[in-house]
Amino acid sequence: MSILVVGSVAFDTIATPSGRVENILGGAATYFSLAASYFTSVRMVAVVGEDFSAEDEAVLKKRGVDTRGIERTKGKTFRWGGQYLDSLNEAKTDFTELNVFENFTPRIPREYSDTEFLFLANIHPTLQAAVRQAMDGVRLTGGDTMNFWIRGTPKELAETLKLVNVLLINDAETKMLAGEQNLPRAARKVLAMGPQALVVKHGEYGATIFFRQGAFGIGSHPFRAPALPIEEVKDPTGAGDSFAGGFMGYIASQGDINREVLKRALFYGGVMGSFAVERFGTERLQDLTREEIDARFQVFRELTHLE
Amino acid sequence: MSILVVGSVAFDTIATPSGRVENILGGAATYFSLAASYFTSVRMVAVVGEDFSAEDEAVLKKRGVDTRGIERTKGKTFRWGGQYLDSLNEAKTDFTELNVFENFTPRIPREYSDTEFLFLANIHPTLQAAVRQAMDGVRLTGGDTMNFWIRGTPKELAETLKLVNVLLINDAETKMLAGEQNLPRAARKVLAMGPQALVVKHGEYGATIFFRQGAFGIGSHPFRAPALPIEEVKDPTGAGDSFAGGFMGYIASQGDINREVLKRALFYGGVMGSFAVERFGTERLQDLTREEIDARFQVFRELTHLE
Repeated sequence: MSILVVGSVAFDTIATPSGRVENILGGAATYFSLAASYFTSVRMVAVVGEDFSAEDEAVLKKRGVDTRGIERTKGKTFRWGGQYLDSLNEAKTDFTELNVFENFTPRIPREYSDTEFLFLANIHPTLQAAVRQAMDGVRLTGGDTMNFWIRGTPKELAETLKLVNVLLINDAETKMLAGEQNLPRAARKVLAMGPQALVVKHGEYGATIFFRQGAFGIGSHPFRAPALPIEEVKDPTGAGDSFAGGFMGYIASQGDINREVLKRALFYGGVMGSFAVERFGTERLQDLTREEIDARFQVFRELTHLE
Repeated sequence: MSILVVGSVAFDTIATPSGRVENILGGAATYFSLAASYFTSVRMVAVVGEDFSAEDEAVLKKRGVDTRGIERTKGKTFRWGGQYLDSLNEAKTDFTELNVFENFTPRIPREYSDTEFLFLANIHPTLQAAVRQAMDGVRLTGGDTMNFWIRGTPKELAETLKLVNVLLINDAETKMLAGEQNLPRAARKVLAMGPQALVVKHGEYGATIFFRQGAFGIGSHPFRAPALPIEEVKDPTGAGDSFAGGFMGYIASQGDINREVLKRALFYGGVMGSFAVERFGTERLQDLTREEIDARFQVFRELTHLE
């Protein structure tokens, strides 16, 4: 089944201890789409400027991503510059040029109206809600957000959370959103805001999925997937969006939403995140094979599996 | 098979968001012994003062711990005061009164000379090394250390690490010891200092065991065990020592040291740590049953287990 992602396409300038790159293709929707494309057919809604070339689009098309929802408009594409020279766990933003992204109003092509799976990447919560409301046939909506919206637009975010089935955020965002420092208690508070499931991404320690009581007809016990200890993290940019792409893409590929599918999805999320950081930008996500992905899935499984 | 632990016995004064207790029985060797006592017979070498009562000793004896190695001397027992009011993840020390612990020189009773498993809790590395060298028949030595020794006595610690088979420390200590911020690279450096295996404790995210190539005749792939998301952490004191007690105690109970045993040991470590934090001090560790422990082991297993 196909999945639609709505979010940013960007050109990133990134410095890490491994090197520096300028104006390479990035953005949440790009990472998400490439990661999800190994599991299911992917549709994108995003906005780009005149500097978005046929070569850039080819990166997506080569992976079978449906780019008809990418709107081209006058001006420059969103640009972000950041560095991880002090810590690979947190980006330090050097600059943000919103450019055409500043006035982004997602338009859903008519051809996308039969989409069953939706991912609302990190954009203004009011835009997220509008997209969800425009998509009648959606069975499962995943969503992301960040501290900027949690602090700046709490009311709008609260409305959006009522429309999101699975929220994917990190530890700090979960605690900030709940106003609670204990993770499982914070998770319970976030689930009371609307989502049936909450995926908390722990970076190098993996991820935990918490369930609202009765969600998806399954128990409320949480589930944890590990992350692989990686010696060579070249560039952490997009790891979270690649995680979301693996997670949502796998769910969309299965159709049935049950505990076992969600557990495996959590592992596939970690797998795609682990590939993403091995090279700069989207490089590693462009040329994977499903065999490589499933081999790493087995490595993740072995990492915590007792006989 | 029996295990010997050498380390501190203390009276702790602890404040957490759940309350405050004064002068309760604690210390690394105490937590370790109680946790390990559910798996195997435990022997203790420690020093206490005149304030260590028959009631205090009864806590250990009730769990079958061999206390013949606890030396009584003039003066007061080691006292520590700390609080977790700002964060349950890190203790803020209010006071440390070493008292009789200041001149602790471990003496191994003759009756302990057939001990096969040894745990060197967090004491001066030179004392750790002396104990190990006095124990001819030991098959496996586990050890702990902390930032104080890593910074203050690096040469002495380097000598001790050559005698330790499994080192159990946390993320920050691993990175400090290796002088390296990337965890798997830091682990590799620590393993090059002597230990065949390194257990890195991640607190609420579980633990990872890294192996030196060829150690114990098994592969060098790391293994991860989760920690249980716990809503009510009453008192984190002793969680790491309880982890070590579960880990080492389970290994000693199995006799054979192989990958599967070490994996299960990592899970049992997490299990005992999760019990320890549920009540103040050693309270929860005093009255467990092996059935409760194995039931929680299953919960830990389910937490990451794929069908």
